Amino acid sequence: MTAIQKNIEASSASYSASFTQGHLALPPAKKYLVLTCMDARIDPARAFGIELGDAHVVRNAGASAVDALRSIVISQQLLGTNEVVVVKHTGCGMLTFKNEDAYRIVGEKLGAEAVEELHQRKLDFLPFPELDEAVKADVEFLRASKLVSDSVVVSGWVYEVETGKTRRVV
Amino acid sequence: MTAIQKNIEASSASYSASFTQGHLALPPAKKYLVLTCMDARIDPARAFGIELGDAHVVRNAGASAVDALRSIVISQQLLGTNEVVVVKHTGCGMLTFKNEDAYRIVGEKLGAEAVEELHQRKLDFLPFPELDEAVKADVEFLRASKLVSDSVVVSGWVYEVETGKTRRVV
Repeated sequence: MTAIQKNIEASSASYSASFTQGHLALPPAKKYLVLTCMDARIDPARAFGIELGDAHVVRNAGASAVDALRSIVISQQLLGTNEVVVVKHTGCGMLTFKNEDAYRIVGEKLGAEAVEELHQRKLDFLPFPELDEAVKADVEFLRASKLVSDSVVVSGWVYEVETGKTRRVV
Repeated sequence: MTAIQKNIEASSASYSASFTQGHLALPPAKKYLVLTCMDARIDPARAFGIELGDAHVVRNAGASAVDALRSIVISQQLLGTNEVVVVKHTGCGMLTFKNEDAYRIVGEKLGAEAVEELHQRKLDFLPFPELDEAVKADVEFLRASKLVSDSVVVSGWVYEVETGKTRRVV
């Protein structure tokens, strides 16, 4: 067992010992979804004020709305959410490379078969060169998508990993 | 401004007022990635014992490893993580429907153009009929993928929303 696996078992024991929220319902009580980055420096519950049971939280590399579309459709159409909050962040790794860089690095580290799998899956890493513009583009993508009802409220934000602040972009 | 947007602004003010971790580095300090569901009843930081800065956290509907592959490759190849923890959970919405149900519901709620967009994007909602089997299948998928190095440790778990416990599956 790795140190990380041991940590999960210890955390499970202590968290469950004082756990009192086993009654919460499946649909998010406050009917919203937060989309943010997988970045290790973000704690959405504390930074964005999400109480347990209140909101779906989707996280991926760069807080990509395109990548999150499957989850967003399920959240809205099957579980009744009607608001989306997109939060990208300063210092994001997605600002630092292009698709061709990632393909090259995969080739160097994992070999030609791995690059072939990238091509087979048509994997787009979805990096972006400018932060606020990327927030606006993702909000626009969701507002324009026929898979998101016109009644859904979509807003876009930036979390500052240096200060812990979250500021509205759109 | 919606109540949810006001809540983010208020949470930003209080969280940043006592924020002291602006120095954390981009790569996760403990070099691991947790993949779990977007479900509102899961607080990964507390339930799985993740300290700020320690791990990437990817969340999507059902904790799907297929859906998370883009993020996992970036995490490992560009940001140096070498362990993946997959955590699905009891009471998951993904246990309750099939792709054809989701397509039908989208048609009823959003109309024919939305269903057409589902088909154009070849959107697979990736539901699963049995929980532990789905955990095993996702772990197997990652272990078999040429895009995941053989040296990466992958384990699979189930979080119980009723008890707050996390148990190892594989």
